[in-house]
Amino acid sequence: MKLLKDRILSEGRALNEDILKVDSFINHQVDMELMDAIGKDIADHFRDKKVTKVVTIESSGIPPAAMVAMSLGVPLVILKKQGSKVLNEDMIQTVVTSFTKGNTYELSLCTRFVNENDHVLFVDDFLANGEAATGTVRLLRQLHATIAGIGILIEKSFMPGRSKLEDAGFEVYSLARIKRLEKGVIEFLDD
Amino acid sequence: MKLLKDRILSEGRALNEDILKVDSFINHQVDMELMDAIGKDIADHFRDKKVTKVVTIESSGIPPAAMVAMSLGVPLVILKKQGSKVLNEDMIQTVVTSFTKGNTYELSLCTRFVNENDHVLFVDDFLANGEAATGTVRLLRQLHATIAGIGILIEKSFMPGRSKLEDAGFEVYSLARIKRLEKGVIEFLDD
Repeated sequence: MKLLKDRILSEGRALNEDILKVDSFINHQVDMELMDAIGKDIADHFRDKKVTKVVTIESSGIPPAAMVAMSLGVPLVILKKQGSKVLNEDMIQTVVTSFTKGNTYELSLCTRFVNENDHVLFVDDFLANGEAATGTVRLLRQLHATIAGIGILIEKSFMPGRSKLEDAGFEVYSLARIKRLEKGVIEFLDD
Repeated sequence: MKLLKDRILSEGRALNEDILKVDSFINHQVDMELMDAIGKDIADHFRDKKVTKVVTIESSGIPPAAMVAMSLGVPLVILKKQGSKVLNEDMIQTVVTSFTKGNTYELSLCTRFVNENDHVLFVDDFLANGEAATGTVRLLRQLHATIAGIGILIEKSFMPGRSKLEDAGFEVYSLARIKRLEKGVIEFLDD
């Protein structure tokens, strides 16, 4: 998506091969006009997949995922990162280790909001090692939902996330695929 | 706002005088059509206030605040709840104690995204003791921004949040004001 790639080149800050800061338009300050365009693009790509729910992880995936859900006319379900102190009987959880951030967290989903009739589109801001996406897939499969696809804003294509997900049989649609990232350098695939 | 109040009455679950669960349409599963209507309503209320930024706190305030920002055509700024491990020189923080949840967290804001020319509308899902709102105001004032107003989805009107904020000179606009909450009972003001 040219609009997003141009914005990454003009405002993104590559700190090293792990960290691309996009906090002025995606993560901390959010350009809602851009999110609207992103939402429509991802929604259009998956429009024939009979999506019934859009799922994302709190919190930086929420604005783009919300716009995808809006464009598809379906509810958004937000997976929580903190485990509930009181684990209700209707909550399921899985442990996710983020190699990028060097932390581990529990991803929680209430069983009332996804079921075996759902076709779920997972939307997130970044895809790198794919730990968040595979954790989400584990929860969704536990509830026997169909994974309609995975929509990503920024993919670190030099990391194994995409191939892990494709090997598991899922379609991954990424708006900006980064081939090479190092201090001050951002290069996209297909350029 | 009748649409929101009706939904609270039909789907909200009052567990006790502190907890109103709205996780099927606001907090965990999110009805984006409702968020769109809420966003337009709050945006319309503050449309003459020259709002330049909408600010919210991660993560359940994000969907409604995003729709307010969209309707006003301004950026959304999301305050982070975890303190950055590496506190950059361009981050400011304040400690917030949530009486409802019984925890304390640091609210963070990057100084690049709010300045003295900004008129900021703060939007959040709940207002009870007003700790999150007053913490946000502390950060915004540190950057000399003007507070254009405070937009709230659900106000516990029997708690002191609104009067604290009004005493400090701010306009509080709440879509659903709850007069009485106890197990199985939800009563609104103005009914």
